[in-house]
Amino acid sequence: MSSPDSDTILHRHAQLREALKEENIDVLVINPGPSLTYLTGLHFHLSERPVVFLFPVQGTPAIVLPELEEQKVKSTAFDVHSYTYGESLESWGPAFLRATEHVPLADLRVGVEPVHLRVLELRFLEKAAPSATFVSGEQAVAKLRMQKDDAELDLMLRATHIAEKALKKTLPLVREGVTETEIAGQLIGHMLALGSGGELPFQPIIAFGANSANPHAVPGEYELMRGDLLLFDWGANYRGYFSDLTRMFSLGEPDGELRNITDIVHRANTAGRKIAAPDISAAQIDGATRSVIAEAGYGEYFVHRTGHGLGLEVHEAPFIRGDNPRLLKPGMTFTIEPGIYLNGRGGARIEDDMVITNDGARSLSTFPRELTLLGG
Amino acid sequence: MSSPDSDTILHRHAQLREALKEENIDVLVINPGPSLTYLTGLHFHLSERPVVFLFPVQGTPAIVLPELEEQKVKSTAFDVHSYTYGESLESWGPAFLRATEHVPLADLRVGVEPVHLRVLELRFLEKAAPSATFVSGEQAVAKLRMQKDDAELDLMLRATHIAEKALKKTLPLVREGVTETEIAGQLIGHMLALGSGGELPFQPIIAFGANSANPHAVPGEYELMRGDLLLFDWGANYRGYFSDLTRMFSLGEPDGELRNITDIVHRANTAGRKIAAPDISAAQIDGATRSVIAEAGYGEYFVHRTGHGLGLEVHEAPFIRGDNPRLLKPGMTFTIEPGIYLNGRGGARIEDDMVITNDGARSLSTFPRELTLLGG
Repeated sequence: MSSPDSDTILHRHAQLREALKEENIDVLVINPGPSLTYLTGLHFHLSERPVVFLFPVQGTPAIVLPELEEQKVKSTAFDVHSYTYGESLESWGPAFLRATEHVPLADLRVGVEPVHLRVLELRFLEKAAPSATFVSGEQAVAKLRMQKDDAELDLMLRATHIAEKALKKTLPLVREGVTETEIAGQLIGHMLALGSGGELPFQPIIAFGANSANPHAVPGEYELMRGDLLLFDWGANYRGYFSDLTRMFSLGEPDGELRNITDIVHRANTAGRKIAAPDISAAQIDGATRSVIAEAGYGEYFVHRTGHGLGLEVHEAPFIRGDNPRLLKPGMTFTIEPGIYLNGRGGARIEDDMVITNDGARSLSTFPRELTLLGG
Repeated sequence: MSSPDSDTILHRHAQLREALKEENIDVLVINPGPSLTYLTGLHFHLSERPVVFLFPVQGTPAIVLPELEEQKVKSTAFDVHSYTYGESLESWGPAFLRATEHVPLADLRVGVEPVHLRVLELRFLEKAAPSATFVSGEQAVAKLRMQKDDAELDLMLRATHIAEKALKKTLPLVREGVTETEIAGQLIGHMLALGSGGELPFQPIIAFGANSANPHAVPGEYELMRGDLLLFDWGANYRGYFSDLTRMFSLGEPDGELRNITDIVHRANTAGRKIAAPDISAAQIDGATRSVIAEAGYGEYFVHRTGHGLGLEVHEAPFIRGDNPRLLKPGMTFTIEPGIYLNGRGGARIEDDMVITNDGARSLSTFPRELTLLGG
């Protein structure tokens, strides 16, 4: 996995202090996950043993962690005080207490990431500092993480290339009777062989026929038949940074309406990519894709948002939703993935990974977006 | 992934009601993760969109979930009321409110899993039911999940076989100069080709030379040298159930002390496996492995617990720790994995997956445990 260099980490800490001040947050608490790696360069698994990084607006940060992981914090790019606990559960609470003597939380506003921090960590923190107020610090962290630097964009481009190359190697295996799980296994194998990290952004969605109408389908034992749509939604991991793409195929020519919805979705995807630029809002992009689908008469079958931010997480800010007024800025990365889902028949989605540039936007992904007929 | 059949799910619900009554818990709340699948047969990804399953001791359960996932709950084995929300954030809170009108939480003791439930879900629940008391319901769920039935044991055995076969296919690739990441990639590829699910229990730890002294090493670009120890800690996923093994190798003969610590660890592993039986405590097993290592003079270098439960999670109850008085019972599955770590030089760990039987215990894993010399 990628570890940011020392200068990058110190720069991020300076930016984070400003972002926390703006949000009136005194201390940020982060547990294992993408933000911890982003802010510290450290990698911890999320396990039943709590790990928390306490980052105060003023002063030296602290980290609470198991003794057997202490080696990891010996060579950080910044000063940090570590407070360890042993295998005995009774040693856990005291480690939190000692850490909060060094980084006080009492009577302060403590920011957390609600989608990452668990009740496990929260209860230890509350016990160590009953008078602290825990609030969402999500926006302060997201503000930094949304603005990818060139090194991050390069890793995302590599993740996109791995995904596209793996697709090309997998497509020749598509034939009548093949199962979704067989294709998913081959696709994963090719991504790993091409350099993807084993922790994929998500398990590929390979959905044939009517299964493609389920936006979150899980590959199963369905055997491909002629005339079926094939939906591939997959991504790779390059040193912690993700890609996330969707493309449509069919085994021979699909029926007229299925062909029609893939064409409409392609037009919607194109409309979204075209409008993307600095100071365009997330809501405007959502509106651009949605209006194409609505005008074609399928508005009620586009049941999800147009996209989501992408980077160290597969779903992160900015979320491309109709109710999100956020203005996009250079360096922001996100998906555009309109879809139409006809229950019991089939669905179509076409997804690209976009980056906002100084004068517009570009797609990291270049694989053709048209419906591709296979096994012809 | 595995979905338990209808009878199994209804049986688990009956058991769960009893377990909750014993713990004086009125409602159990579960978010996406292994317990949700175990109790409902449903698979949800943990994402920024909250999903919670509310299981009352009396009455019909409820589930809060995004509209676009509603299809999944149309064919459950049991009655459940679903409460959905849309893409607009404003629709999320009302869905929790409606669900808690159906399954009241007010003034009740509500059990949660602290290592799974996030601040995200907790805050929605607290807002919907400010007078509820949230407590740990972990033990009630663990009580059920610890006792594997025959179908579950069969899946775990399959996961163990996949891991062992993949190891055999990978070992011939070990040679001077090969990197940890190359071997890890090959091992993962073989596991997937042999039928492992893509969501591995953890990314394999392939650690050469001095890296083997880090219990949680991450594979890197270190190139294998003659005399190095090789530590492989890896596992497969068969339909949601995991294996987790560790074996030791060396490229040619290692130095005397490294050979010695692997022999001691092998004896410690054997002592732990031999004592495992019904009504033996977790602490006794920990004591059995630890005393072998202590008597050999390496007690301070065995820096972790002897093992952990294994099943739908790679770390679950029963935890094999010196301070855990829990008596083991038939059907319980756990690892025995003593280790010795000599900082800067090398480490050894040997890990098996055990199941308690009616009259003793057996190891699901059978690959030879001795240090195996490669590249002879």
